[in-house]
Amino acid sequence: MPDLKGLIRTIPDYPRAGIMFRDVTTLLGNAVGFKLAVHEMAAPYTGVEAVAGIEARGFILGGAIADKLGCGFVPLRKKGKLPWKTIGQEYTLEYGVDIIEMHEDAITAGQRILIVDDLIATGGTAEAAVKLVRRSGGEVAGATFIIDLPDLGGMKRLAALGVTGHALMTFEGH
Amino acid sequence: MPDLKGLIRTIPDYPRAGIMFRDVTTLLGNAVGFKLAVHEMAAPYTGVEAVAGIEARGFILGGAIADKLGCGFVPLRKKGKLPWKTIGQEYTLEYGVDIIEMHEDAITAGQRILIVDDLIATGGTAEAAVKLVRRSGGEVAGATFIIDLPDLGGMKRLAALGVTGHALMTFEGH
Repeated sequence: MPDLKGLIRTIPDYPRAGIMFRDVTTLLGNAVGFKLAVHEMAAPYTGVEAVAGIEARGFILGGAIADKLGCGFVPLRKKGKLPWKTIGQEYTLEYGVDIIEMHEDAITAGQRILIVDDLIATGGTAEAAVKLVRRSGGEVAGATFIIDLPDLGGMKRLAALGVTGHALMTFEGH
Repeated sequence: MPDLKGLIRTIPDYPRAGIMFRDVTTLLGNAVGFKLAVHEMAAPYTGVEAVAGIEARGFILGGAIADKLGCGFVPLRKKGKLPWKTIGQEYTLEYGVDIIEMHEDAITAGQRILIVDDLIATGGTAEAAVKLVRRSGGEVAGATFIIDLPDLGGMKRLAALGVTGHALMTFEGH
């Protein structure tokens, strides 16, 4: 079994001084590591009916997880990227706000949805994803990530919404 | 077997008048359709050593195909999105030029690479992807898409580069 944490590349001072950026592309590019990560992210969620993947790295993992679970894939995209009628959900950034959007007909009422992204930090995007799914009538079955940065509190933020998050590894700091 | 072509949503006059936009999200969201599409896109390429997926919809399909083929995934991203050292390749748009980038260490010399995107139109992005892979020393094993718009000539453009493209369906016009 590969050491998944050892496959993450840390880039100091990216995108700015003081940030230790955790680059998952080195894990995604490793055949054994990618297969194991997808397997471990998907395994607890055999009952879900669709995967909602957060643009852009959540698409890579979410597509693989949806195929493995035998369910459909719903893209949660940055503003203005989806071609059909959308609903949007704002979330707070360090400076200002951003928005993610979903097609209004992407999820049917009662559908059990797994949210997928590569990393959870403050949990702002993940919270917006939970709200989008619920506004469509979907039930959030969970949220799964490669990396959790626990010092930034994202998992607690999900727990406060009644969602249990799952990550394959943690890194201290941010 | 589902009718994959019937799962594509056509949006007239998007993003502007005269364009019939082929929306794959309705196929991706269909559990049976998504699984079949991934299977059919991956099946001819059992020998590849990595999948290079083009941002953003190519990530969804490429992640699933890489997992199915048991190989790694390499993201080809829009300018400025990758955190490590990159090589870039320009391509021509209707008005002006754009660029896609890849991490300079993402592919090793001689690696057999499958390029994945949701749709091929003029083939400008796909051609840039082929050039990026080759500049890294990789061998392009093929390029696979859900949709080909043959009137726009993308597959011929790939053929001129010595690459055989494959698509699950075609639509006339653009």
